Parts: sequence; structure tokens; C-alpha cells
Amino acid sequence: MSIPFDKFKEHCAIFGVYNIKEASNYVYLGLHALQHRGQEGCGIVTRDKGVFYKKRSRGLVLEAFDKTDIESLKGEIGIGHNRYSTSGDSSIVNLQPLTASFDLGDIAIAHNGNIVNAFEIRQRLINDGAIFSSSSDTEVIIHLIARQKGSFDQRLVLALEQLKGAFSLVILFNETLYAIKDPWGFRPLAMGELNDSVCFASETCAFDLIGAKFIRELDSGEIVKVDKYGVNSFKPFKKENSYRCVFEYIYFARPDSYLWDNHVYEIRKKIGQQLALKSKVDADIVIAVPDSGMPAAIGYAQASGLPFEIGIIRNHYVGRTFIEPTDSIRHFGVKLKLNPSSDVLNNKRVVVVDDSIVRGTTSRRIVKMIRNAGAKEVHLRIASPPVTHPCFYGIDTPTKAELIASSHTIEEITKYATADSVEYISVEDLESIVGKNNYCYACFTGNYPISFE
Amino acid sequence: MSIPFDKFKEHCAIFGVYNIKEASNYVYLGLHALQHRGQEGCGIVTRDKGVFYKKRSRGLVLEAFDKTDIESLKGEIGIGHNRYSTSGDSSIVNLQPLTASFDLGDIAIAHNGNIVNAFEIRQRLINDGAIFSSSSDTEVIIHLIARQKGSFDQRLVLALEQLKGAFSLVILFNETLYAIKDPWGFRPLAMGELNDSVCFASETCAFDLIGAKFIRELDSGEIVKVDKYGVNSFKPFKKENSYRCVFEYIYFARPDSYLWDNHVYEIRKKIGQQLALKSKVDADIVIAVPDSGMPAAIGYAQASGLPFEIGIIRNHYVGRTFIEPTDSIRHFGVKLKLNPSSDVLNNKRVVVVDDSIVRGTTSRRIVKMIRNAGAKEVHLRIASPPVTHPCFYGIDTPTKAELIASSHTIEEITKYATADSVEYISVEDLESIVGKNNYCYACFTGNYPISFE
Amino acid sequence: MSIPFDKFKEHCAIFGVYNIKEASNYVYLGLHALQHRGQEGCGIVTRDKGVFYKKRSRGLVLEAFDKTDIESLKGEIGIGHNRYSTSGDSSIVNLQPLTASFDLGDIAIAHNGNIVNAFEIRQRLINDGAIFSSSSDTEVIIHLIARQKGSFDQRLVLALEQLKGAFSLVILFNETLYAIKDPWGFRPLAMGELNDSVCFASETCAFDLIGAKFIRELDSGEIVKVDKYGVNSFKPFKKENSYRCVFEYIYFARPDSYLWDNHVYEIRKKIGQQLALKSKVDADIVIAVPDSGMPAAIGYAQASGLPFEIGIIRNHYVGRTFIEPTDSIRHFGVKLKLNPSSDVLNNKRVVVVDDSIVRGTTSRRIVKMIRNAGAKEVHLRIASPPVTHPCFYGIDTPTKAELIASSHTIEEITKYATADSVEYISVEDLESIVGKNNYCYACFTGNYPISFE
Amino acid sequence: MSIPFDKFKEHCAIFGVYNIKEASNYVYLGLHALQHRGQEGCGIVTRDKGVFYKKRSRGLVLEAFDKTDIESLKGEIGIGHNRYSTSGDSSIVNLQPLTASFDLGDIAIAHNGNIVNAFEIRQRLINDGAIFSSSSDTEVIIHLIARQKGSFDQRLVLALEQLKGAFSLVILFNETLYAIKDPWGFRPLAMGELNDSVCFASETCAFDLIGAKFIRELDSGEIVKVDKYGVNSFKPFKKENSYRCVFEYIYFARPDSYLWDNHVYEIRKKIGQQLALKSKVDADIVIAVPDSGMPAAIGYAQASGLPFEIGIIRNHYVGRTFIEPTDSIRHFGVKLKLNPSSDVLNNKRVVVVDDSIVRGTTSRRIVKMIRNAGAKEVHLRIASPPVTHPCFYGIDTPTKAELIASSHTIEEITKYATADSVEYISVEDLESIVGKNNYCYACFTGNYPISFE
Repeated sequence: MSIPFDKFKEHCAIFGVYNIKEASNYVYLGLHALQHRGQEGCGIVTRDKGVFYKKRSRGLVLEAFDKTDIESLKGEIGIGHNRYSTSGDSSIVNLQPLTASFDLGDIAIAHNGNIVNAFEIRQRLINDGAIFSSSSDTEVIIHLIARQKGSFDQRLVLALEQLKGAFSLVILFNETLYAIKDPWGFRPLAMGELNDSVCFASETCAFDLIGAKFIRELDSGEIVKVDKYGVNSFKPFKKENSYRCVFEYIYFARPDSYLWDNHVYEIRKKIGQQLALKSKVDADIVIAVPDSGMPAAIGYAQASGLPFEIGIIRNHYVGRTFIEPTDSIRHFGVKLKLNPSSDVLNNKRVVVVDDSIVRGTTSRRIVKMIRNAGAKEVHLRIASPPVTHPCFYGIDTPTKAELIASSHTIEEITKYATADSVEYISVEDLESIVGKNNYCYACFTGNYPISFE
Repeated sequence: MSIPFDKFKEHCAIFGVYNIKEASNYVYLGLHALQHRGQEGCGIVTRDKGVFYKKRSRGLVLEAFDKTDIESLKGEIGIGHNRYSTSGDSSIVNLQPLTASFDLGDIAIAHNGNIVNAFEIRQRLINDGAIFSSSSDTEVIIHLIARQKGSFDQRLVLALEQLKGAFSLVILFNETLYAIKDPWGFRPLAMGELNDSVCFASETCAFDLIGAKFIRELDSGEIVKVDKYGVNSFKPFKKENSYRCVFEYIYFARPDSYLWDNHVYEIRKKIGQQLALKSKVDADIVIAVPDSGMPAAIGYAQASGLPFEIGIIRNHYVGRTFIEPTDSIRHFGVKLKLNPSSDVLNNKRVVVVDDSIVRGTTSRRIVKMIRNAGAKEVHLRIASPPVTHPCFYGIDTPTKAELIASSHTIEEITKYATADSVEYISVEDLESIVGKNNYCYACFTGNYPISFE
Repeated sequence: MSIPFDKFKEHCAIFGVYNIKEASNYVYLGLHALQHRGQEGCGIVTRDKGVFYKKRSRGLVLEAFDKTDIESLKGEIGIGHNRYSTSGDSSIVNLQPLTASFDLGDIAIAHNGNIVNAFEIRQRLINDGAIFSSSSDTEVIIHLIARQKGSFDQRLVLALEQLKGAFSLVILFNETLYAIKDPWGFRPLAMGELNDSVCFASETCAFDLIGAKFIRELDSGEIVKVDKYGVNSFKPFKKENSYRCVFEYIYFARPDSYLWDNHVYEIRKKIGQQLALKSKVDADIVIAVPDSGMPAAIGYAQASGLPFEIGIIRNHYVGRTFIEPTDSIRHFGVKLKLNPSSDVLNNKRVVVVDDSIVRGTTSRRIVKMIRNAGAKEVHLRIASPPVTHPCFYGIDTPTKAELIASSHTIEEITKYATADSVEYISVEDLESIVGKNNYCYACFTGNYPISFE
Repeated sequence: MSIPFDKFKEHCAIFGVYNIKEASNYVYLGLHALQHRGQEGCGIVTRDKGVFYKKRSRGLVLEAFDKTDIESLKGEIGIGHNRYSTSGDSSIVNLQPLTASFDLGDIAIAHNGNIVNAFEIRQRLINDGAIFSSSSDTEVIIHLIARQKGSFDQRLVLALEQLKGAFSLVILFNETLYAIKDPWGFRPLAMGELNDSVCFASETCAFDLIGAKFIRELDSGEIVKVDKYGVNSFKPFKKENSYRCVFEYIYFARPDSYLWDNHVYEIRKKIGQQLALKSKVDADIVIAVPDSGMPAAIGYAQASGLPFEIGIIRNHYVGRTFIEPTDSIRHFGVKLKLNPSSDVLNNKRVVVVDDSIVRGTTSRRIVKMIRNAGAKEVHLRIASPPVTHPCFYGIDTPTKAELIASSHTIEEITKYATADSVEYISVEDLESIVGKNNYCYACFTGNYPISFE
């Protein structure tokens, strides 16, 4: 049984590197730095002397690969992928990178995102005689490429321009490495360099670990091609407005990543500061729901002048599964991970800052936990607007009906959570911090940039 | 390291069952009975309420599946496969049954045999935009079916009539079970029944285990279709001469199987008897190389009047891998499996019966082993003609150059094996026992029924 | 679930080697050759530069140790043990060799047998302040040694002369190797040599595999000590009559072993011959329950003039556990292992030779199996006298009440087994073949050489 | 390879519970809450109807036990143990609880601490005929108990009064539970209650998780006995001064635990505040080395008025082992766990607070990491006095020679760490916060309360 932590889930992380000795070492380290974006399984494909080397496995990067694995992945070029299983199905067949042989040679592909019209294209391909061995969107992309005419570059463009939705990709085609971002730019993808090598990663924290220098974020709709002739960029797709996922700032990205011209940590602190200004409350201390609520809580504390304290301790020895104890002692999910510090909380009026509320169940447990530890008042402050709509662009969210804010007022949520008050940052305040244009706020507003009927 | 036993290797076993509660139990037991045809890995696919359940694993059937696995494979219809890895590559991706989705629904396929023109068809498909995720012939078959037009039955025929080579198949197409034998009838495939259910197996010994009744061997080129309308047979392919693999009688089939109108054990005994008549030698005892040489040795003993003894003990606790000890004590491969009984052999003139000679290395070690145990004379009798040509119809054989009989006379083989005499049964004698027509003797004669340029 | 094969079970095998490079290789191979004496777990201890190296594991020798394990077991001296779990408890703690530190240094000990007064001594030791961390008899021996006074040799004698029962032992005491047999000589233990090294094994088949020369069986009550001063033998114990286990000849020992001045295979054949003379029956063929019934069946066939055939095929791919299928298809235990060959059996009057009958359940299933395969008559011939009493000297037997021959006449057994006739060899005939003196026939007669109230 | 994080290591955690249904569930949860005190392995022993149930395993509690394990540990009384391997030897044999049988019955024991005179006692026992099957101190305790005379309570006292050193123990003797603290009271052990049950744990955070109420810390030299007659306390040992381990406050204990009349978090914050007052420096921000430096850093920030920021991100997906990459990219140990946030650090004068400095290597890497992220100045503040002496009372420390502060001045340490300044809290200031009496400061002063020549 997995720990029932009520958060949105990122689908994936991708990483690629070109022209470096023992490339598999760098992919391995890069994927480790991106582990927060997907923990169900991972994979690495490298290329040496015309042959793909491939290893995919369930579990965390540091556990999935041993020294022998890394050494057996030969070559100076490689890509990798961390997966979060959306459908509870983390069978090896659905792990990435996906590989296939087709008329121009071999292809390996790692994908972060979600193709809105994948099912429709899949049906079209199937009607045209294609067979599918996995249920992943990514297999659709390979089929589309294989069925075009012309050079690989031409086919790539012809294939990708049929796709609607979110796709950040790294692709190995024989000896060439491609990094690609969809025209709407939903998911991040950054380029770095390390001596004479080029690398790509979902977030810049991967560059920090391997000692690479961050160069720039890919543009929406950009294809970067790296081969022996050098690094070339082209933007062959019809120009679209950018819709970068604002939830990357709220929750997914690591706070030490630099994303779309902002430091993630800085954005989160500003949200906390704004929350403090707009939803002031008489209180004694500010605490965070660790770890994601920390930067906003620090921002809140600084703006409000209230002391920041560590009122909830996180147990880091929680694996990805646990045994639900028997009837007499159920409902340990949250407690296995979080423990309130009664020393800090007893007899206090507490502001507790969390990044978001999804179903509300975890918030309710946390508020009760704080109150049981002796708090006199519990004021919940949320570093995102109310989440009212599911995401279709690469995030694993519950249905609309399960999102508490889609059907409950803030008063009702306050009551359900048993809090003394609940306040969210508004969409407008978030826009003023992050920027109004170029971002996707659909999960807060329902204004979906790509339709999907 | 695998035990270097110098035998031809069967590619595979297949099994299918229709209309029986807990079908997975029967597939599991059927595959176990067919374990001798492939030990590298196995798989089962069942169908229930429109969904495939699938489990594939490396290793033996009894080890690969536990109770939870079998119970999770729901439904009253199922197929299974044992695999012997031809290329040393038993990665999970190449295990069968292979499954795919295509325009008419879902397909699962288990294949015993070898498609001679698979590479040619694969190239044609690739040029036409197909992508391949495995290196198996079987994926070719699925692509061919998916790309035809018409009903599934029509497509099946259109697809299969493009294939040259050996293919015994069981196929699940949605809720329908198909059992198919190629027009040349290379590999066996039998039909049985158990109460109201129908089953198919590579050999009848699988029926014995589950308590099913053997009905008949499929004809060459026959398709048997089992669905809610009953069992229907059709023979849509151009009529070809039958070329049943005579090596099934020599070595592959289990001696308790009934195959192509003959009991395997009976055929082997007759070969031994014929050997005794044609290659008489003054000796004290007859022993077998266990276990495959046993029936022929018993036949030899009965026809010659010499006593049959157990002169070589087989160690059955040999797994599929072992550690090659260090330099000081190498070359244990054969000794780990076989031990001569000096009690039986000492001071004796020994006739030792083996089923075949491939490279000759094992024969040489066995002769030396017998002589070291005190035998005065060692006369090797081989229950097959000299193997001079590789097989292209579903058997894993070494190249022609590695087959000792392709380049050495019997005198030279005798000398190499350090035997006092070596005698084979002749092709003519084998034909007189098995039948001349309808069988493939290509590995002894080089007369290949299907060309493969 | 383990395959319910109704046989007596040997407790263990032991092996030791002195003065050979990479001793662990030889222990590993020796234990493999002795695998038939115990399959639940195994262990090796070696000694190098004053340190024990130790590895114990559940499972078969070839699976339990990999190359790294063998290499990590350093030194030129080592002992090993195969274990059959008597009480269903094969936890690692009870695997051998057992090691301990005491005042004279380190000791490792591997034991084959059963100490009749172990419980009594254990209680005495416990009353005297000893603590026990396992439930094995062997820990008693170590405690006894540790609590004596004097040199190790003196203590060894003082300790062992307190024991009643069966104990063949190999012991490493610091750099010295001991091989020891109890004064009654119940269980076998042989000495061999390989160049300048000395080795000990439960059976001589272990010497054959490693290329060592069999020197002699240890005498009852003998201690052989091997150290830098050479090989020394002493017999310090009070002289007792020898009571060698006759069941080693009947079932446990490998047929290629040479045991107590006889070849095991030869003894078994003679039993079969004697059975044929004494219990003649009009029949068409003689078959064996494989593999243990084979030599007696061959003897029977030779003496009776009836043809020997392979009427039951053994499936060698049966691991040590299997899944009992669901209700609809239960009772597969025997069928998973054995399949009758209807070709051979149909319409025949069959003599089937088995080594022994324990509970009778397996015999009943085998007879029914043969009859279902078409046999007209089934005559069961047993190569041992009726087993009427349990063993207390190192064999795992059911209770007296479970032994069918303890409470049923041969007529009743015949009826239960649904056979046309059942005949055993008599104790007198067995004595005439094996020798009357120096052997333990207690499981047939109830005349226990050591009392155990 | 384990992550080379340069910290003192706690030996162990212990937990016990009496009179609660499904006791194993509570031991499992209690051990999970105490996971920070030992991660190499764990074990649970329960008692039901006169039988011990036992399971020990390498790894984390949540991974080591599955539902079947927990259910198989029957009974309403149980103890458990988390182990940190001191000698790199976490073989199963050395995991606890240790169990044994002796004349009064069965005993299971879990130990946190280190017996200073264990070797001496072990030698005495060995000379007296005892045998040892593990290398742990705990086996010494069991031997001592088994060799006394009288009732269990009498023996327990006679045995324990021979021990010098640190021992917090939970013991199951048949159906009785004992919780014991040595006369010096080095290591913590607390008592709690949950309805009608009594429980004991190394730290109170275990009570929080299972919903038990903290009752009190055991006194130094106290034995609490829980059986059907109730809870009884006695203090049979010669009275000693208390020497509670002050490092529990500095680093080991979880910040949400309540220990020896203080909240751990509060003590750490006070240390940070005191550090700010005594070692003021002109700076822009205060950051912590996560997670252990957090409370002191918050205290420092509050007292200094400088803003607290999260300047180093911890990667929580680091397992206990990792692959050291090849030569080209070595030295990733610290970077795999910690990443500086250049956003926060760039161009800043940074105060970084860590809990202690052991060898200095990690401090040096962290300072360099912060400087590479753009910091203008790096001021290291240490929430403990300089560690100059190893611990002999249950903590795994390097030798004196490896402790950088034992041979270097603060100036030299500053230079080695490449910091702009390094300041420690003084022993006197620490005493003023924690209390001077009743605590052991030996690792800072060398004043060892128990000699150990």
C-alpha cells in the first residue's frame, strides 16, 4: 500500500547527454537529481558503435542501477527517464525510454507530458494496421515518425505537428540526440553544458549535481539537434501562445531549480509573503507542512514578523510502501510521515503553510494533528489558489469531483479541515508574482489552452 | 555459465485451453509437462471479460509462477509458452506469448518454430512504416495480420500464407482460440479434450498430466478455431508435402508422448534394436547416456541379448547455471551432471548408447569417463544418423562447420571420441522405422524442403 | 508446498578437505555430488590466516553459491554441509556448519546423524548455565567440548563419549581438520586423497566428482585428525558393535557410491534378483518407480527373464516447491513428477519395482496411475522389507502409526494399494545379501541398538 | 558504498510493549518512529502461548517487514530493536533482539549502549566454558544471567551489576517484560501507556506515533518489571552519578522527542540563540545544514535578527548505498544528498549552522559548495563544542586521531574548511542550557565517567 499523501503527481523527468565519456554515469546522476518528479521506475539508454544499451527497472535510481549496470551501458551519448505511474501500472513494459527499430534505424525516446489527442491518433494508426505493445502515449510518437516519408528531421516534424498536448522529449536517433519542447511549452526542459558536452534536463538541479553549466531553457516549440556537426536549433511548428505549467512553481520543481527566468525558491517565498499581507491573522508562530511548504512559510514569517518554527517533523525513512496496520490502529498514513512537535505547538496560535489542497483529507488530518499537539488555534494558509479543475497536460490529478475546492466554498473547506481559518493566495496575486501571460492556470480557472473533446 | 551439454535445442513449447474454469491452472500444468522443450522462460496469457491477463518470467514454470500469479490470471481461456533462448537473449521482452492491440481488438500469440523468410518480411514491413520492439519472428506475424483487410479469419490466412518455415501456433484473438500448423507440418501440435473444454499442446504428455483425452494431431496446414459456436477446422493454404521433424522422435519429444501415429518410446526402442542388429559387437553390457539414450539402449539390450545396466548416474540437482571452478579444476561441465559407476563398468566391454552426436565434445568426455571407470572397451552406438546439416525449421543447432559429422568420417569420429567403435543408425534404417515420406531428414541429408536464399 | 513424495529423508551430508588451494571450490563440488542427501540448505566454512570464512544459504548448492561467494571463502582447508530440514524449520540459524568461539579458539562443525540423548544433555547443560541459540543437536556437541578441561583432543573425546546415537562429523578446530564416526558407525563417512590433500565425504561419489581417490571408510568410533604433522587416527571410545544403516543401501546412497565394502548399485540389483526368485509372478514387463527403483528393477528383470521397460517417466524440472492447484484439479503431487507411458503399459501385466513403502499413499497413486494407463495387472515388488518402526539415528521418518506396514498385513496393503499383488524382500534375504552382523535393521525389526528412554 | 556522511552514529533503538492485541503492529510502528537511531537492520520478538515469534532482517523497518511477517509475530507482548552496524558487520547473526534458551526458560533481549568491560567478561566466560555464536555485547549479558543462581530477578541483578558501561535494555523473559537502564543512565529510555498497556521506547516520538501517553523517563539504575501482577520498579544497583549523553540533545534524538525534562527542539534552538549572541558576525542570511542543523539555525536567526533561509536542499531519495562513479566524476557523496540553492546564496554573506564537526571533511565540502553557489562570505557556526574525544558508551565515533578538533585549533579548522570564520558553542554555554550535572560531556572534555583500562 502506498502512503496516501494527497498531492498532485508529476508524470516524469527526462535527461540526455551528448559527447561525454561514460555517459551512463551522468544520466544516472541526472536522474537522481530529478527523482522528485517520478519514483516508480527509471531507465537509461546509451548508444555505442551502432548499438543501443538499455536498462529499465522499477524503483529509485540509486537502487535500480548497480555498478555493473552502469558499466554495461556503454557509450558517450545517452538518455534517461524517471516515471511516475499514472494508472497504478508500473509494469516494465511501460517504463521508458522506449526503443524500437524502424526503416531508418533505431530510436529511443523519453517523454515528459501528456498527449491530449493520443487516443484519437492511436485509433487512426490502428485502423491503418499499426500494432501497439504498450499503453503509453510515447509509442504513438514512434509510430507516427516511422510512418512519415523523408529524412528523420522531416519525419520528426511531420509526426510531432500532429500532436496536441504536452511533450518535452529527449530522443536518440542512431547517433543523434534531440531535445524537443511542444509548441505550448507546458513542461520545462533546460539545456546545459559540461566542457565539450551538451546536456538536457527537466530541471536545472540536475546540472548542479553533475557540475554542468545551465545555458538556457528551451523555447516553446523548439527542437535542438546535437550531432557531430554541432548543436542546431529550429522551430518548425506553427507558433502558439506559451502555456507554462504554473504548478511547477507551486509544487513540482525542486526549490533550488531555476525555471523560466525565476528561482523556484524565490517564487515560493514571494507567495508566502503575499499570503501574509492579504490574509493576516493574529498568531504566535508560523510553521510549514514539510518539505514543500517550507519556502512559502519562511516568506510568510518574514512578511508577518511572526517567528518561523519547525512544528512538524518529517520521517524520511518512509519508503514507497507500507503495511496498513490492522483495524485497531488504522489510518497511520500521514502519521508515518509527519509528527507534530508538541513542544513547539502547545498553547500556541499556529499559522501552518501548505503548498496546495487537493482532496482535503490530508489537510484535515494535519490540522487535527496540530490541535492534538496542543495548539490553541490553527490557521491554514495555502500557497496556491483553490484547485478546481483537473490537469490534462502531464500531471496526475484526481477527477473534478474529488477536488474539494471544485464544490466547496472556503468556509466549507475550513469547516471540513476543522481549521480556525483557511486562506488561499488568489489567482490574481499569483499572476502578479509569476506573470499573467505565458502560463497555464487551468487547474485554478478551468481555462484550458487546448481543447480535448 | 550454463552447463555445456552438446545437444540440439528445441525452440519452444505451446499450450492452449478453451472453456474451463481457472484456465491458468491448466496452462501452468500443461507448460510444466512440456518443460523439456524450453527452460529459459515461460509465459501465460488468459482472457476474462474483454481483458488480457499476462505474466511472463524467466526460469522454470514451477518457479516462475506462484499461487498469486496463477490466481491473478483470470478467465476460462488461456495460452502459454515455454521458451528456449536461441541467441542467449532471454530478456523479458522476447518471452512469449506476445500481445498487441490492433484495429480488430487484442491478440496474444505463442509460437513454436522458425520463419525462414522472417527477416525479408520484417524488412518489407519496416520499409512500410512498421516499428519493431522485439527481435522475435512472432512480432512479424502480428504485424502481418494487423495490416491485412477483412475479418480476422481472412486476415489470418492472408498473413500466414506469406510465411515460409515452421510455425505451430496458438492464438488468442479476443475471445477466440486458434491452433495452427504450417503447411509443411514441421513441428507437432495436438488437440485434446477434457469434459467440455478443448485444449492444444505441443505434445500429448501435457494432456496426460491434466487428465485430458488426446483427440488427434493437427494436419499440416490446418487451422482449428474454437469459439462459442464450437470447434471448426479449415485448411485454407496451398497444399504442400508434409515434412515432420524426425528429430522429435530422436531426441526432443518426451518418451511418453504419442506423436504422429507413433509412440515415441517405441520408435526409440526400435532404433536401438535395429542398431543392435546392424552394428553387433562382442561386449558385456549395454548402458545408456541418461536420460535420452535410455529407450534405445533398452532396445539394443533386448535385441542383442546383452544385459542392460545403469552405468552412468545423472545428478538431477543441476540447475541451469553453475560456477566454472578456477583453473586448477576446470572442465566440470559434464561431470557435474553425469557420474560413471565404476562398479558396473570396471573390466567390462561396454556398449554405450546415445541419441545423437553434435560437436563430438561430449561424446569424447563420456567415453573417457567410462574408460577411467575401468571399462576395457567402449563401443559408442548412436540412435540417429550422422548429423551433417543445421536445421532452419525451429531447432537451435550449431553451424555446419561445428557439426563433427559434416567433415569427419566415422573412423575419424571414433578416433576423436577415443572409442573402440562408433556406429550410427543409417538414414535408410531410420526411414524403415519412422516412414520415408512426410518427414524431414534435412539435418542428416541436407535435402531442405524449403529453400532459404 | 513441497511435493508430497512419501520417502524416508536423509538428514544430511558432510564434506571436508585439507591442504588444497582454493579449498572452497572442492567443498562446493563435493556438496553438489552429495546433494541427494539434503536439499533444504547448505553451508561452507573455510579457514585462512586464523580467520573463519563462512557462508550458509537455503537451497541447492549450485544455486546457493555464486562465484563471488566461493572466492570470498578463502583458505586451503574447509568443511561443508547439506541439510535436510527435519522439522520443516530450515531457518538460517539452524543451517550448518555451526561455528563458535571458545577458550581454545574457534570451532566449526558439520554433523550427519542424530544424538539420541541430546535433549537430556541439553537439559543438563542448561541447568549448568549454558545458553542455546539454536535447536540443533550440534550446538550440544560444541557446548560439551567447551566445558571439558585439557587439550582439544582430550576434550573432544570427553565430550563425544557422552553422546549416544549417530554422529558422523567433520570439525575444523582452528587449523586442524577432524573426521569422526560414532562408536556404532550408523552413518557413512569415507576418506579420500587428491595429490597432497586429504578429504572426507559422506559418500564416495563426492570423490569421483573432484577426481580424488577413495582410500577407506572410517571405522566405527574412529577419529581421524589432519594437521601439519600429517594424518593420525585414533579410536578412543569404548568398543561397541557396529550398526551401519542398511537403509543407505536401500534408498539413500547414490547407486554409484561404494559403501562399506559394497557397491550400492550391486546390492540393489541383487535385491531385485532375489525378489524375482522369491516372488515370481506371470507378467509381461518389469518397470521401475524412477529413479530409486531402477537398479532393483533391472536385477528383477535379469533374474526373471522378463523385459525391463521404462514405463514411468520422471519429470526432472520439478523444483522443491509447487503450487497446489485449486479444488477442481487437486492431487497433482505425484503426477507432477511421474507420468506413466501408456504405450509401454497398455494391455500389459506389469511388475513395478519400488525401493520401499512408507505410508502407502504414493504406492496407491502409482498403482492407479499404471492401471489408468491400460495395464491389465499391477504387481508391486518392494526392494526392502516392510518398514514397521521409525528411525532414531539420523533419518527423518514418520511415526509408527503412519507406517502402513506397522499395522497392516501384506494382504491389507495390497488391497489399499489396489495392486494385484505386493511382495517385499524378507529381512532374512536382505541379511543374506548385505550381511547380518554390523548392520542396523531396526526400521524393519524394532530391534534398536541404542535404547532411548 | 555508503554515503560518506561525517556524523557520529547512534548504535541502536529499542522498543517494548506489554498487554496489547497484535503487539507486533505496535513494535513495528515504534521502531519506525525510532528509525533515525539505526538503519542497518531491525528485529521483533513477540511471545504467545509460551513460544517466541521472531523475525530479524537487514534494512529499514518499513521494508524489512511485510504484512505476513507482522501477522506471523503473534501475541500481546513484544520487543524490538533497530541496529546501526558499528563494525560494518550487519550480518543477520548480529541483529537483535537476541534470543536464547536457558534453565529458567526463554529470553529475548534488545540492547542500546556499549558495555565497556564486555571483552573482559567474555574472556572470563570463555575460560569458564561458555561458547559464543555472535560478536555482540548482548550475548555476554545472556551468558551472565544464565550462570547465576536464584530467581530470574535475582540473577538479572547479579548479572547486570558486573557490567560497566551503557545499557538501556528491554528484555522478554518468558511472559515478563523488563525495561532497564544502567546506573549511569547514559542512554535514554522512556515509559508510556496506551489504555491498559505499558510501553517503553528509546525516545518519546515512538509514543506519539502509536498514540501512547508519555509517563516518565526511567531513572538511572532502574529496573521496571511488567507482568500479570502489574508494573513494579526497583533500583537494586549501587547508586552512581548520572551521566546522560549530551550528544542526544546535539544530534541523535529527534527534535520532536521530549528527553530528560527538556524538549529537544527547544534545547537546539537555545544553542543557536546562544551561538548568535556569542559569535555575532555581520551577515545577510542564516541557513542550516539540513536536517539536523535546522532548529539551531532558526534559533540563531531569531536571536541575531538575520533572515532564516533554505540555502541547501536535501535530496531525500538517497538510499543507504550508492555507486561511486568512475574517476572522471568522483566525490559525489555529499552532493548526492545536498544541493546549494544559488538563488538564495549568490552574492550573500552566509551564516551556515551545523550540529557538529567530526573529521571536518564534510564541513569543508559544504563550505566549498556554498561558495561555489556565489556566497561572498561563509561563516560556519557549530551547535556543539569541539568534539575532541571518542565515545565508549554506545556511540560509533572515529578514533581520537581522526577527530579534527583533537589536534587543530579553531583557526586551523577555519582554514581547513575554507570558511571565513568558524565558531563553536562553548562547553560552559552548553552546560548553562542543558545543565552541568547529570550529563556526560566526555566527547568534548575527555572526562570519562567510567574508566576502561
